[in-house]
Amino acid sequence: MASEFPRHLLDIESLRREQIEEVLGLAGRFKRERAAARAGKARAPRHEILPGRIVVTLFFEASTRTRSSFEVAAHALGAEVLSFQKDASSVTKGESLQDTVRNLEAIGADVLVVRHPAAGAPRAVARAVRASVVNAGDGSHEHPTQALLDALTLREKLGPLEGKVISIVGDIAHSRVARSNVHCLSKLGARVRVAGPSTLIPAGVEKLGCEVARTLRDALREADAVMMLRIQQERIADARIPGTRDYARVWGLNARTVELLPARAVVLHPGPVNRGVELSSEVMDGERSLVMDQVDSGVAVRMATLALCLGAA
Amino acid sequence: MASEFPRHLLDIESLRREQIEEVLGLAGRFKRERAAARAGKARAPRHEILPGRIVVTLFFEASTRTRSSFEVAAHALGAEVLSFQKDASSVTKGESLQDTVRNLEAIGADVLVVRHPAAGAPRAVARAVRASVVNAGDGSHEHPTQALLDALTLREKLGPLEGKVISIVGDIAHSRVARSNVHCLSKLGARVRVAGPSTLIPAGVEKLGCEVARTLRDALREADAVMMLRIQQERIADARIPGTRDYARVWGLNARTVELLPARAVVLHPGPVNRGVELSSEVMDGERSLVMDQVDSGVAVRMATLALCLGAA
Amino acid sequence: MASEFPRHLLDIESLRREQIEEVLGLAGRFKRERAAARAGKARAPRHEILPGRIVVTLFFEASTRTRSSFEVAAHALGAEVLSFQKDASSVTKGESLQDTVRNLEAIGADVLVVRHPAAGAPRAVARAVRASVVNAGDGSHEHPTQALLDALTLREKLGPLEGKVISIVGDIAHSRVARSNVHCLSKLGARVRVAGPSTLIPAGVEKLGCEVARTLRDALREADAVMMLRIQQERIADARIPGTRDYARVWGLNARTVELLPARAVVLHPGPVNRGVELSSEVMDGERSLVMDQVDSGVAVRMATLALCLGAA
Repeated sequence: MASEFPRHLLDIESLRREQIEEVLGLAGRFKRERAAARAGKARAPRHEILPGRIVVTLFFEASTRTRSSFEVAAHALGAEVLSFQKDASSVTKGESLQDTVRNLEAIGADVLVVRHPAAGAPRAVARAVRASVVNAGDGSHEHPTQALLDALTLREKLGPLEGKVISIVGDIAHSRVARSNVHCLSKLGARVRVAGPSTLIPAGVEKLGCEVARTLRDALREADAVMMLRIQQERIADARIPGTRDYARVWGLNARTVELLPARAVVLHPGPVNRGVELSSEVMDGERSLVMDQVDSGVAVRMATLALCLGAA
Repeated sequence: MASEFPRHLLDIESLRREQIEEVLGLAGRFKRERAAARAGKARAPRHEILPGRIVVTLFFEASTRTRSSFEVAAHALGAEVLSFQKDASSVTKGESLQDTVRNLEAIGADVLVVRHPAAGAPRAVARAVRASVVNAGDGSHEHPTQALLDALTLREKLGPLEGKVISIVGDIAHSRVARSNVHCLSKLGARVRVAGPSTLIPAGVEKLGCEVARTLRDALREADAVMMLRIQQERIADARIPGTRDYARVWGLNARTVELLPARAVVLHPGPVNRGVELSSEVMDGERSLVMDQVDSGVAVRMATLALCLGAA
Repeated sequence: MASEFPRHLLDIESLRREQIEEVLGLAGRFKRERAAARAGKARAPRHEILPGRIVVTLFFEASTRTRSSFEVAAHALGAEVLSFQKDASSVTKGESLQDTVRNLEAIGADVLVVRHPAAGAPRAVARAVRASVVNAGDGSHEHPTQALLDALTLREKLGPLEGKVISIVGDIAHSRVARSNVHCLSKLGARVRVAGPSTLIPAGVEKLGCEVARTLRDALREADAVMMLRIQQERIADARIPGTRDYARVWGLNARTVELLPARAVVLHPGPVNRGVELSSEVMDGERSLVMDQVDSGVAVRMATLALCLGAA
């Protein structure tokens, strides 16, 4: 089947709704197949969708979770994986990013999965090579597969997202997860709210198509889902957050504040969770929490992304 | 065939003799198949016992030998491997061990092979996940696959271990290898002796079911095998061992002291060997040495362990 | 078919011309197959030439390019890969190189691909094991697969190398790439010239079978190809090169100096390129540059090397 899916997945902003739906549809199928294999103690079908293809993970920031998720996804499709963890500064010193990725392409890379501290780096890579490029997080710009896995997780739980209210709470200004999710959820018809310390809400964020809630109470009221973002230690260092204890008290979800949510509302977090800060252990391990389901969705979404970018699905 | 083997291998202490025999029987078969493939220049049969299964090695202490052994074993069974080397301190900071392993399970891990400086960490992991857990060494507690590979190596050389005298020489107090071996060899009917500097023999060690020899001469007399433990630099730093030269003189096996062993007795060492300390090069490379055979047994024992824990053998 | 290819590839110096031709012939076939798979969007044929074999890359110097190339090559032949990056000093401390490689062999390694800062280390490894050993660069001695990939690249572009003039420009004294190439190109009948700062031309280099050009102009005159070597920062530190800017002015290939080459002459570089030093971006990205083609040849040459050393081709 001829897919119209683009060769690269660089951001959510430039995707059309039907392209998002295409990923979610295929990912949902992969997720069900994986679950069936687990439940029935059946052998996991090794999808021979990308046999002999080479997926390179090129991470200029430390990450084991996202990188592993891509690697499991690539293996599940029958691809080989080459994995590089690099220091962004050292690479720039010895060789340009462009030369590094051209070299990887010449070795045989079919897909480059790139994480980089500089916004726009994956797009620069895409201009340098003929291989497919998947953005695994670039600076404060986007983290498109995270938004897609969140959408898959939400849709499976809530049904179609049209008109659903989804709140994102935390450091909106510096979060690529927030940015990709605002784009993705809006395109799928959801009403997105963002909330967090006023120093961490970018001016004019409403133009992205979301509302701003001024308090946690406002963020949670009538929400169908709330997505809690991880706070970064560097935000405390630069004094935009006073400290983890204060943050937890005002913006954290715990046994008390979770009651501000409607009864059936669910809780997401991109992980890793600072237990006791963004989420208390009661909430993290409670019935509303979809955190582990998000991880499961992540592998499926990355399988779908790799297959679609390579025109193999 | 329905195996009664437990889902986890956390220690030798809680295994029954017939479970130990089951691992050794299967491992022996795998070892012979590997040898036949090598000798006949035949292609090594890729056992399709764990196709599509995911084995995660999660090591909180540096180790390339044990980790590689598990990885070769997993590949030989057709499984995929994800490999993590972590700093125990940093993980604790960012995310609990429990959350880390739940995440790995959600990604798709079927087995978690865990090495950790804290005794009991693999058991804590086993409580947190539904996946199988294999202890690859936890603090001074146990290192069960090491004991199983030692038993396989010894049994192939000496026949049934019933009544055989096996001496373990070195830092008994801090050695998970010694602890697992005392349990394993006792259960198999051997008479186990331990020996070493008095500061490194734990009080009451006889309760584990072994004798204590006070000198190297006493340890070697009438022994069928002697297992020399690696001395750790930190034991010299904390002054429990005066220095490597003194240690070698009193407790080392060399061309002279090896003659205290009966003619057919064999020598083992879990590796890596400090040549010239625990073993002189003559002994290490001599006819009695089974050190390389132990490494070969190691892959076979880990294949058997993975297969049995997953109920696939 | 019974191959006369040696079990190890330790250097070019001891290879006969017909053995070099054998690698190049097989590598050329592998390269065409890879290109066909890419062009036709056909699935890359997973050559089941080394199924179940274990290729270990054991690198005592940092390298992602050469290591990845070997790993892609091994996977393309159906082999498994175990990858080790070690610090030469730390290994020597804990365990001898000999014991390390014997251990890897006992785990199941069929081939050890070794990079080491000490000239002769791969040969020492080959004496310690029965497994095949491939030298991936040892000190200032040799880097045989680099020379073979250069020869393949040149031959595909220039036809038979008999009588062709190939110039190598840069730090000849410390370059294993230069040394292997002088041997390889000479054996294939080419006329080899070397050139570079006088402090970096070893006395008596002519005995290796090459001419010395005193200037860049002399090196480029009537050359069919020029191979530019990477300058190492340590050569500036030890004052053998005055600085990168001066080096580029006198020995660099740029839009102006490249005109000193005959019209059809080509430019090679083993990579990674210091853009603006050995090669300007115009030359690096220009029509004469074969730098990316060299990388492509590299995978094919390493496939051929692994297959021939294991007697599987």
